[in-house]
Amino acid sequence: MTDNSFAVAAIIDGLKRCLPAGYKSVGLHEPCFAGNEWKYVKDCLDTGWVSSVGKYVDLFEKKLAEYTGAKRAVAVVNGTAALHIALKLVGTERDDEVLVPALTFIATTNAITYCGAVPHFIDSEERTLGLDPHKLNDYLREIAEVRSEGCFNRKTKRRIRAVVPMHTFGHPVDLDPLAEVCVRFKLDLVEDAAESLGSFYKGCHTGNWGGLSTLSFNGNKTITTGGGGAIITNNEDLGKLAKHITTTAKVPHRWAFYHDQIGYNYRLPNINAALGCAQMEQLPDFLAKKRMLAERYFHEFTGIQGVRVFREPEFARSNYWLNTMVLDKENKMYRDVILEAANDCGIATRPAWTLMYKLPMFESCPRMDVSVAEDLEKRIINIPSSVFL
Amino acid sequence: MTDNSFAVAAIIDGLKRCLPAGYKSVGLHEPCFAGNEWKYVKDCLDTGWVSSVGKYVDLFEKKLAEYTGAKRAVAVVNGTAALHIALKLVGTERDDEVLVPALTFIATTNAITYCGAVPHFIDSEERTLGLDPHKLNDYLREIAEVRSEGCFNRKTKRRIRAVVPMHTFGHPVDLDPLAEVCVRFKLDLVEDAAESLGSFYKGCHTGNWGGLSTLSFNGNKTITTGGGGAIITNNEDLGKLAKHITTTAKVPHRWAFYHDQIGYNYRLPNINAALGCAQMEQLPDFLAKKRMLAERYFHEFTGIQGVRVFREPEFARSNYWLNTMVLDKENKMYRDVILEAANDCGIATRPAWTLMYKLPMFESCPRMDVSVAEDLEKRIINIPSSVFL
Ligand SMILES: Cc1ncc(COP(=O)(O)O)c(C=O)c1O
Ligand SMILES: Cc1ncc(COP(=O)(O)O)c(C=O)c1O
Repeated sequence: MTDNSFAVAAIIDGLKRCLPAGYKSVGLHEPCFAGNEWKYVKDCLDTGWVSSVGKYVDLFEKKLAEYTGAKRAVAVVNGTAALHIALKLVGTERDDEVLVPALTFIATTNAITYCGAVPHFIDSEERTLGLDPHKLNDYLREIAEVRSEGCFNRKTKRRIRAVVPMHTFGHPVDLDPLAEVCVRFKLDLVEDAAESLGSFYKGCHTGNWGGLSTLSFNGNKTITTGGGGAIITNNEDLGKLAKHITTTAKVPHRWAFYHDQIGYNYRLPNINAALGCAQMEQLPDFLAKKRMLAERYFHEFTGIQGVRVFREPEFARSNYWLNTMVLDKENKMYRDVILEAANDCGIATRPAWTLMYKLPMFESCPRMDVSVAEDLEKRIINIPSSVFL
Repeated sequence: MTDNSFAVAAIIDGLKRCLPAGYKSVGLHEPCFAGNEWKYVKDCLDTGWVSSVGKYVDLFEKKLAEYTGAKRAVAVVNGTAALHIALKLVGTERDDEVLVPALTFIATTNAITYCGAVPHFIDSEERTLGLDPHKLNDYLREIAEVRSEGCFNRKTKRRIRAVVPMHTFGHPVDLDPLAEVCVRFKLDLVEDAAESLGSFYKGCHTGNWGGLSTLSFNGNKTITTGGGGAIITNNEDLGKLAKHITTTAKVPHRWAFYHDQIGYNYRLPNINAALGCAQMEQLPDFLAKKRMLAERYFHEFTGIQGVRVFREPEFARSNYWLNTMVLDKENKMYRDVILEAANDCGIATRPAWTLMYKLPMFESCPRMDVSVAEDLEKRIINIPSSVFL
């Protein structure tokens, strides 16, 4: 008991030293509107262009494509919708399987079910907190059969359509070996880059490895549009199709309503895109500030026993979306005590997500050995990471 | 040819007399931000509450419930999402059938397919421009078998789960006989009230007949939130469930991520709800102005041959969301000439939607005789209806 409370106190002290003096309560990730947000939003109201018509959607898409280096970005209503459409556009069908880390936010997994497909859970690696491509490779060698049409699960007989890696808290997974696995096993690669706007893998922005990738601009993300997301792609045809089916698949005509396939109303309203344009202008500044905060955490925690602050893998330049403490294995039983102590004194902290297969609706989905994810789930604590800290 | 151009000219002249003198171009339905929009939106930006946290979502839901007289309103990302969830919550499953008018906007039909169900198309009546409950009754007598578990289609063997009437251009369908049909055939009733905020049937707001109903606040609707919608219901449990599954089905906890079923990210961002609150304050004024415009159209078109302006059915007080010309049967061949002439001189007009079963993805769906909808499709022209006209 004494040891326990001692270690916990040191950690809480460490956190306090990194936060503004005299703070009352600090959120995990709060938005910062220090640029042209007002100006652009007011322009929408003054012109009446708040909805599907207006210039900010196009401009936001252009800025996103330019920044990420992708050929095309399609703004949508949120990151979940982006995942749904990206999975649809790589051909995910009823009763397919899609590989996804067990350690991810619920949206990655839910989007698979929206296509009528079955999630199949994969382990993570401690180096990136994301999907382990080498372990995946070994696993697929065991369970998959590659035919001319694609990859099949020998046990369930279902087609395995795609892999959806997720760049956890902004840290890129090891994309090159993963891309090789995808080629070897004829799998489509859809990066869930919801958390990694501003994160680069070997000098190239995340989201450029798969056929389609997805971003989120939820209120807790590096930049926000209130709610919002995007699909990014280097395939112009897929980009066009993504735009088409996220806007009800209406065929352009002066007045006639003709829709050539089942579509969605996933378009981002112009007023939300206006926020996005202002936020994108500040992104480099946000990233610089987030790096400084991460440095402060490393520095303060160097001397603290039993815990480390997670650093970007050597091949990556991360956005440090959410800073993360990883408890040493021996200390994982203190996770909830730390969460309680920190939250009690107004410092927002949270654990990793519950592993997907522990949730009732995914209990019976196929999965590999996920012992690393199991272990990480117990050791991760996210700590305050807002830009203005 | 002479007669034709003569009739068309009279109609265009009639339209011109109803529009502001010296107009350059008039849209079909443009939003009006004359109230507290900027104040509330600015409050969101100043407090940083633009996304899932913030007071405007709750307030907007409260205002909607109060105004419609429903027990609960749940704000969502748009009317299409509202329909998807309403259909899910009445139990729509893979391979069920759902009855829906052939004459409706694509979203009503698409939402059925999102549940994996099959749309089954129903005829309309000229009196309301919406679903004909008597014709539906006769049709169901012919094709349906009512068992203790519910209603089944004798031909396709599929379960018929629900009926989704739509209040076309704001005009209520004849809800009482429709509700009787639903009881008789054990069908759930989901009103697509996307177009009918402010429309009353026998003194009670539309959306109060079925288990769940849906609204839309798209940019072209009577009030707008940029993009937005709502589910309304008089069943508290369904209301709670609607809130839960539109917000990822997360079980409340200080920090843990536990989701108890497959959920959606359909929540309306706070910044969009802020717009909605300001718009709701102006709704009575908007409705009064829309009624005056409708009166002006009736007045001006009384003397014009071959066409009438649609008036609310005797049991309804309609919002006149989109004013509508209905060409006499003998004149339907002039529809496109009129559309062309009006749009050419800057007066936005549009025809009815293409009937659903004419679209490639719905060609093979079951349908009854839809001769009235067929006829109406060729005779309807929507005319400018913005509040500020
Ligand atoms: C990993 C991951 N995927 C998907 C999403 C979904 O994005 P959104 O909340 O914009 O739907 C999020 C963020 O919420 C996320 O963190
Ligand atoms: C009849 C009808 N149903 C559903 C919708 C869908 O609403 P939203 O555009 O908000 O998704 C609309 C409006 O666009 C509509 O007119």
